[in-house]
Amino acid sequence: MNAVVWTDVAPRDGLQNVAATVPTEAKVRLVRGLLAAGAPRVEATAFVSPKWVPQLADAATVLDELGADALPRLRVLIPNSRGLELALQRGVRNVLVTIGVTESFNRRNVNRSVAESLADLAHIVSAAGDSHCTVDVALSVAFGCPFEGRVAPERVVEMCARVAACGADEIGIADTIGVATPAAVTEMCERVSAVTPLLSLHVHDTRGLGVANVVAAYHAGVRRFDGSVGGVGGCPFAPRSTGNVCSEDALLALTSLGATVDADLSALCDVAAALERDLGQTLPGKLYRAGVWTGAPIAAETAEQRVG
Amino acid sequence: MNAVVWTDVAPRDGLQNVAATVPTEAKVRLVRGLLAAGAPRVEATAFVSPKWVPQLADAATVLDELGADALPRLRVLIPNSRGLELALQRGVRNVLVTIGVTESFNRRNVNRSVAESLADLAHIVSAAGDSHCTVDVALSVAFGCPFEGRVAPERVVEMCARVAACGADEIGIADTIGVATPAAVTEMCERVSAVTPLLSLHVHDTRGLGVANVVAAYHAGVRRFDGSVGGVGGCPFAPRSTGNVCSEDALLALTSLGATVDADLSALCDVAAALERDLGQTLPGKLYRAGVWTGAPIAAETAEQRVG
Repeated sequence: MNAVVWTDVAPRDGLQNVAATVPTEAKVRLVRGLLAAGAPRVEATAFVSPKWVPQLADAATVLDELGADALPRLRVLIPNSRGLELALQRGVRNVLVTIGVTESFNRRNVNRSVAESLADLAHIVSAAGDSHCTVDVALSVAFGCPFEGRVAPERVVEMCARVAACGADEIGIADTIGVATPAAVTEMCERVSAVTPLLSLHVHDTRGLGVANVVAAYHAGVRRFDGSVGGVGGCPFAPRSTGNVCSEDALLALTSLGATVDADLSALCDVAAALERDLGQTLPGKLYRAGVWTGAPIAAETAEQRVG
Repeated sequence: MNAVVWTDVAPRDGLQNVAATVPTEAKVRLVRGLLAAGAPRVEATAFVSPKWVPQLADAATVLDELGADALPRLRVLIPNSRGLELALQRGVRNVLVTIGVTESFNRRNVNRSVAESLADLAHIVSAAGDSHCTVDVALSVAFGCPFEGRVAPERVVEMCARVAACGADEIGIADTIGVATPAAVTEMCERVSAVTPLLSLHVHDTRGLGVANVVAAYHAGVRRFDGSVGGVGGCPFAPRSTGNVCSEDALLALTSLGATVDADLSALCDVAAALERDLGQTLPGKLYRAGVWTGAPIAAETAEQRVG
C-alpha cells in the first residue's frame, strides 16, 4: 500500500541540462551508483538527436558499458519510433515517450502535433510489446506551458485517457516548468486517478515546492515518482532552469510518512556526493550535504552553536 | 481562519549565520524592504553579546535607523534581562527569548540551566509587560539536539506548558538543526496545540524539507511561522549549516492552499534579489530566481526547450 516506485532520472533529465560536459564513464558510474543504492529504476539516457541534446549523444555507449544485467531496472527516453529501434537494439525493456499536453509545446519539442504523437505512440506500444518492452508516457507541461500559460486539469485528464487507451504502462504528469503547487498537485492527482491507475508524478524544484508537491501527491495516493539524485539539473548559466526534485530529499519526506522504498538514503547521498565531484559543482539537493540524521547526538566538534 | 502571520527572521537568524560582513545600511534596507513588501512581522536584530554574534553588534544602530514608525512590526531577539533592557531603551514592543529544550543545548547557548532560563523568562515577561512589550519564546532543538540526539515530543509539550504558564505570547517550536520531517511536524503540532494555542513553527531547510514541513504544520492548524526571505542563512564555509525555510517559497505553497497573508510574493522576491546583490552570493531560495508565475505564457525567448 505504501510502497513507492521511485525512478531516478538524474542520468537523463539531470545531465541533459547541466552546462558541464560529462564524460561517459561518469554517467556509467552514476547509473551504477544509483542501482547499487537500491533505486528501483533509473532513467539511464535517451536516444534523441545529438543535435538537440548533445549531452546524451553517447546513449548507446552508456548502455553497452552498463551491460545486460542492468537492463531490467533501466528506462530510456525515446522521442519517436526511430528512437525505439535504437533502444531495442540495445535490449532496453522500458522506454519513456514524452508528449506535450499543449500543441505549442509538443510542436517545439518533437516537431509534430499532439494527434500525430498519439498516433505514433500506438505504433511504439505495439512495436515495443513485440520485444517485451514496456512503454511509459510523460505528459509534459501538464501544470503550465511556457507558450500557452496555465493548463486546465481537464485537458490533462483527457490526454491521460487517450494515452491509456494507447496501451501505455505508466503515465507521468510532468511539471516541466516547475509551476505546480501542493493544491494543484492534489487536484490533478485526484482527477487523473479517477480515470487511470497508471499515474506517476514528475516535478521540478523550480520554485522550491518540489518536495512539498511530492508529499501532496503521496497523500493523494500516488506511489510512482521521478526525481534526480542531488536534485541535479538546470543550467548554472540559465537562472530560470532548475533540476528535478531531489530524490533523497523527497524520499526522506516520504519515508517519514510511512512510505517504503528499496533505496537506501545514505547510499543515495554518497551517489550525490560523487556526482558533485564529477561535475565540479554543488548540487541543489540538501540531504547529501547535511547527512542523514540517525537521531543520535552529532559529534560536538561539528555541532556549531546557533541561537534560535 | 486561514490568515497566516509570517515573521521574516532574515535580518537576525539569516544574517547572523552568513560569512560576509553585512553593512548596517544593508540590514536597514533589508528590514525596510520586508516591511514594504508586507511582511507581517520582521525579526530585525538581536541584543546579544558581540563576542558571540559579531554580525549583530550594530543592533542599536539598526533600530535607530529604522525609526519609531517601524517598531510595531519588529521583533528583536534577547538572550536575557540585560538584552531586554537594551531593547526597551530602543522602544522595542516585541522580543523573542530562546530556550533550549535540552539542558546541554541551553547551557551551551545561554550558559544556564533550563530551570534558570524559565525563571528568568518570568522576570522578562513581567518587566516587558510593564513597558507594553510582548514576549515570544522559541524552544530550540525541539525536534533534535546536536548534543542529546532525538527529543521526545513529550518533553516539548511539557516545556510549552511551562513557558505558557510564564505568560509568553507566542511559543515557537524551533527545528534548530533541521531534522524535522512532515510526519514529525504533524505529530508535534497536534500535541502542542492540545496544550496551548500559542504555537508557531520555526524550521530550517537543512535537509530540504522546510517547505514540506511548513505545509504539514499548516494542515495541522498552525498559522504562525518564521522564515527568511531568500532562505538566507547558513555559512557557505560550513556545509552543515543552512538557512531558515525560504519565506516566499513557503508562502507560495501556503497561499496555494488557501492561506492568506499580507505579504506580496513578487515584492518579497525583489527583496531577496536585492539581498543577493548586497551579499554577493546566490541565496538558497528558488522563487526569487524563477519568478512568480502568473499563469500567463512566458516570453518565447526565455522559454528554453526541455524534453520531459
